[in-house]
This record gives sequence, C-alpha cells and structure tokens, in this order.
Amino acid sequence: MGRQPLPQEFTERAPKNSFNFYSMTKNIYDLIIIGGGPAAITAGIYGARKKLKILVLAERPSWKLNSAPIIENYPGFNSISGPELLKRMREQLNYYKVGEKEEKVDRVKITGEGVFEVGAGKNKYLAKTVIVASGGGLKTLGVPGEKEFTGKGVSYCVTCDGPLFFGKNVAVIGGGNAGMETALELLNYANKIYILEITDRFWGDEANQEKLRKSRKAEFILNARIQEIKGEKFVKSLVFENKKTKKIKELSVDGVFVEIGSAFRSDFVKDLVELNEFGEIIVDSKIGETKTPGLFAAGDVTDIPYKQIIIAAGEGAKAALSAYHYLFKRT
Amino acid sequence: MGRQPLPQEFTERAPKNSFNFYSMTKNIYDLIIIGGGPAAITAGIYGARKKLKILVLAERPSWKLNSAPIIENYPGFNSISGPELLKRMREQLNYYKVGEKEEKVDRVKITGEGVFEVGAGKNKYLAKTVIVASGGGLKTLGVPGEKEFTGKGVSYCVTCDGPLFFGKNVAVIGGGNAGMETALELLNYANKIYILEITDRFWGDEANQEKLRKSRKAEFILNARIQEIKGEKFVKSLVFENKKTKKIKELSVDGVFVEIGSAFRSDFVKDLVELNEFGEIIVDSKIGETKTPGLFAAGDVTDIPYKQIIIAAGEGAKAALSAYHYLFKRT
Repeated sequence: MGRQPLPQEFTERAPKNSFNFYSMTKNIYDLIIIGGGPAAITAGIYGARKKLKILVLAERPSWKLNSAPIIENYPGFNSISGPELLKRMREQLNYYKVGEKEEKVDRVKITGEGVFEVGAGKNKYLAKTVIVASGGGLKTLGVPGEKEFTGKGVSYCVTCDGPLFFGKNVAVIGGGNAGMETALELLNYANKIYILEITDRFWGDEANQEKLRKSRKAEFILNARIQEIKGEKFVKSLVFENKKTKKIKELSVDGVFVEIGSAFRSDFVKDLVELNEFGEIIVDSKIGETKTPGLFAAGDVTDIPYKQIIIAAGEGAKAALSAYHYLFKRT
Repeated sequence: MGRQPLPQEFTERAPKNSFNFYSMTKNIYDLIIIGGGPAAITAGIYGARKKLKILVLAERPSWKLNSAPIIENYPGFNSISGPELLKRMREQLNYYKVGEKEEKVDRVKITGEGVFEVGAGKNKYLAKTVIVASGGGLKTLGVPGEKEFTGKGVSYCVTCDGPLFFGKNVAVIGGGNAGMETALELLNYANKIYILEITDRFWGDEANQEKLRKSRKAEFILNARIQEIKGEKFVKSLVFENKKTKKIKELSVDGVFVEIGSAFRSDFVKDLVELNEFGEIIVDSKIGETKTPGLFAAGDVTDIPYKQIIIAAGEGAKAALSAYHYLFKRT
C-alpha cells in the first residue's frame, strides 16, 4: 500500500513554517544538516517530521553508498544495492519538501547568540542548530583499476563485504591494525590472504600477526608499492612493485581490501568541536551532542568506532531529535 | 535482484561453527541475544555475518513493531507496516540459520571465568557474550478498546504517529512531562488537544503547561479516570469519569496518545549492570558496553532517551560488533 500524499496544509506550510515555539526570524533555518549520506538523510527525515525549517547542504550524494554494489546488513533488505538504498532514502526525505543545495561547506561559526553561520564559498546560511554528518573519506590507493573495480572486488569494508569472498583469494593492502583485523576476519571466508605493506615492517599488533601466521592462509609481503588492479568484469589480479628489488609481481586475486587509513571531513568545524587523533568529532553518542550547544554530529564523521549504514542512520535520528529538544527548551 | 543462496559450506558450517579464534567449547554459544525487536534482530544479523555461534532468546516477536500500523520514519521505506518490517528483518536473520527459541529469560549470571549463564525457567544456556535487547514495555491503560484500537488511533509515540493526526482532535493521557511534550508536539498537527490527568494536578514543567495554555488548542482535564476508548474502524471517542463528581463524559477524538510511563525489561540482569531511575540499562552508547565485560545492551531497554526503530537497530549493530571485538581480543 502506497503512502497517502501529505495533506495540503502540510506541504503549503512546510516551506515557510519554522519551529512552532520559536520566534520566526527571517532567513534563519531551524536546522542546517551538512552531509549527503544516511546520517544526514535520516536527520532530515526526523527533523522534517518535527516540522523544523531545514536546509541540507551536501557536496554530493553519499559516495560510499553510491559505490556499494550489494548491501546485506541493512535491516529490512535482504540484499539491496547502495545506489538503490540511497535513492529510496532520498525520496523519503524529498517527500517533506526539505530544502537542499549541492554546496561544499567550508566553515561553521557562531554569529550572535544562538545563531550559526554555515559558509560554502561565497554563500552563507544562518541556522539555530547544525548537524554535521559529513562522513568519512577512506583513503584510496589512487592506482589504475581501483575506482573502476570498486564494488567489483575492490572493497574498503570487510564487515560489509567479507562474506562475498567465500573460498576466494584476496589481498589486503595495509599492514597496520586495520589491515590485520581485516585479514583476520577474512580467515572466515577466504582461501588465501595476501597482506601487503608499503614500508619495510608491519605495524599491526604482534598478537594479530601471530594469529595470521598460524593460520597458514595468510602471506605477508613487505615493501610492496601497489601499481594496478586488473580485471574484466571483476577483479582478477593485483600488480605491485617491490620497492627494494624493483621487481614487478602480479598476484591472482578476486578481492582487494584497502585499509590504509581514513580522512574525515571535520576541519571546517574544528573550532567548535573536539576532534580525536583521527579527526573524528567527539560526541555524546546517547544524543549526538558536541561540546557546542546547538551543534550536533552524526555518522561516520563522529568518534563512534563502527562505520556502518544502519548505525549512521540511527545516529542521524538521535541528532535531529536532540536538535528539536534543544530548540524546544529555548522557546 | 534477489540474493544468491549462501554457499553450501557456509550453511553447513554455520550451526556448529564457533568463533574462529576462540577455542570451541561444547554447548557454549559465542553470543546469546535476549530480545525479539529491531535491536536484537540487527545484532543477530551482524553477529551471524561475523560467523559467531548465536542463540536468540525472545519471549515473543517485538510487540511494538507488531502493533505499529504505519511506519514512515524508518529510512529506506516511505511507508511500511510494523509487522511487514518485522517480517523482513526476521527473514534476513533467518537466512543465516541463527538459533532461536521462544523463551522468557529470567536470569543472567556469571558462571566461571568469561562464561554467562542465561536462564529461562528450567532451561539454561551458556555463552561467552550476551546482548540484552529486551525492549521496553510502555505502560498501558488497560481499558476496553485500548488494545483493539492500538495503531488505529491509539498511539504510544508522538514522534512516530503525530503527523497522522493533521487537523484532527486528539487526547493525551498523562499530565507529566511526557504527556506535555506529546501535547506540545501535537500542536503542529492537531486542531484540538485534550490533556487528561488522573490525579488532581499536572506534573509537567510549568513552562510546558504555559505554552500549551497559550496555544488555545489545548484543554486540560484533571481527575480523569479513563474508562473506555470507542470507535468503529478507527477511534471515535474517549470515555472518562471525573473521580470527584463521578460524572461520566465522552470526548469526540480521532486519536489517543497514552503517556503514563514505561516499564523496562531489565530486572533479570540487574546485578550485572547499572540501571538508571527508569530501570534502563546504562550503556556506553559508542559501543553498547555495560559495566560487565562481555555483557552488552542495545535498543529501548538502554538509557538512550529516544525510543525509535532506526536507533535501536543501529545500537544492535554496535553491540554485536563490540561482542565480536571482545571475543577477538580474548583469543
């Protein structure tokens, strides 16, 4: 059964309607949401249902969702593609006629009491509350084939994609703990796991290395500079150079897991929040609060260690409800 | 496109397979999940995908989802019924052949190092980790018509159902802050809001009462003992007795929001966790941890203030990933 269209009053009032119990000031949004992924969209849905006047600013729609071919761990869908899930979420948000602009936010500051200025190049917008849900950019190798085969063998998330590689040969790029943990998890699925590190030592905990060595499935390769990922429809091999010997080698693999670190989009708000060593925004995860009243954060950009769609969506809902309560209290 | 069946090895190994890096002990589960709602099911999906040996114990499937006729704030579905969403989530879990039993857990204790005993009447089960996702029971009025019209005008969640009552007359039962906040939110939608309280005073903050009085949409009624909710297909009226005058009155309303408190299912684990004043389990919400190592909690039973499906699901994923990491570290 489809959804009923919104009553006319709702859609008519929505664009100009502001938070009910808050004196309406011209051109000030109740809530600006920065981001285009599941946390931002869910925050938008929740905020809109509270009838907040909202603007969503995103450089582009979630690249992570758009590059996920199969998602099997989002409850409600046995299996769905990332672009399809993103499309469904965006439709749901658009139903509420929420304002959206494709702009890259480069600053958030406080201007006057209880008002934030959100800047994107020459443009600036005012809001009573802000939710930062700008996501995390995983570092990429930047080699030929990587982009082309993302979602076709190249993965940045073993929790998401590990089970797809049952009985296959895979490579893990990155000899730190993230790489080790990815490799350990792949022991559950893969037949053979190459772990490649660009420097001359492995950085992951000894205990993890030990477990991998014991497994007999893992093979460690140092001084490996990745050169290319090859394939046809899916990944077929990985080409790397030994930095010392300058020899070129090609490994026959069906999957390549890239674990060389993350870069979070949090710099534009760094003066108003606390960041941890990774550049993640530290939040009170019960309610999505940062150290600045009225400023909330949700999703992969926060210091919640697990970067998962369903978690980001839940955190987006929390942040929007907290923004609503913050406005409510200030009436 | 449907999902591929799991590779045969996966299904064959799943029932007897335990956590890879943990010495397999007979009859000890890696993870027992207590609950039947979105937090429990999501934890099950995530745990199963990590190939943990899991048992899910639930008295019954989520009554909250089963009594929600329309859900419009779960990202991915414009509009879906609670039973349908529950069915889809359960199918997704069942795909991984996770063990399930319909039993009411009445105790969790530590028995031996790093092993939990989970008891349900005469039965007991052992596990290395436990996730409590037993949900919250909202207090009900217990009057004729309440059950019959739940989801047909009777609601326990204004965030979920408020927008359904655009231009309608509604009643809010409960004069505490939950009732006041529900009424305030309904100002966005409803034409007329009756707020009924059984005692001779209102308990909500003065500021909230003040806002409601100013609105002219709200009418306060004290000493009101609810007797019946009447309707045909949907709610049509609410019958109550004035406790002092003994007079019976009938209000013509389309909706009845019940806000008379919650009762959480956390007693069976109270010696191992910290509970707050409401009986909610206090967690570190970044990872779902309780004060007892190996014991996690997720969803409405925790002290996260917002009781929402998408939030519960996200917390379930966190708890399962944390259980996995806990086992991982103890290898």
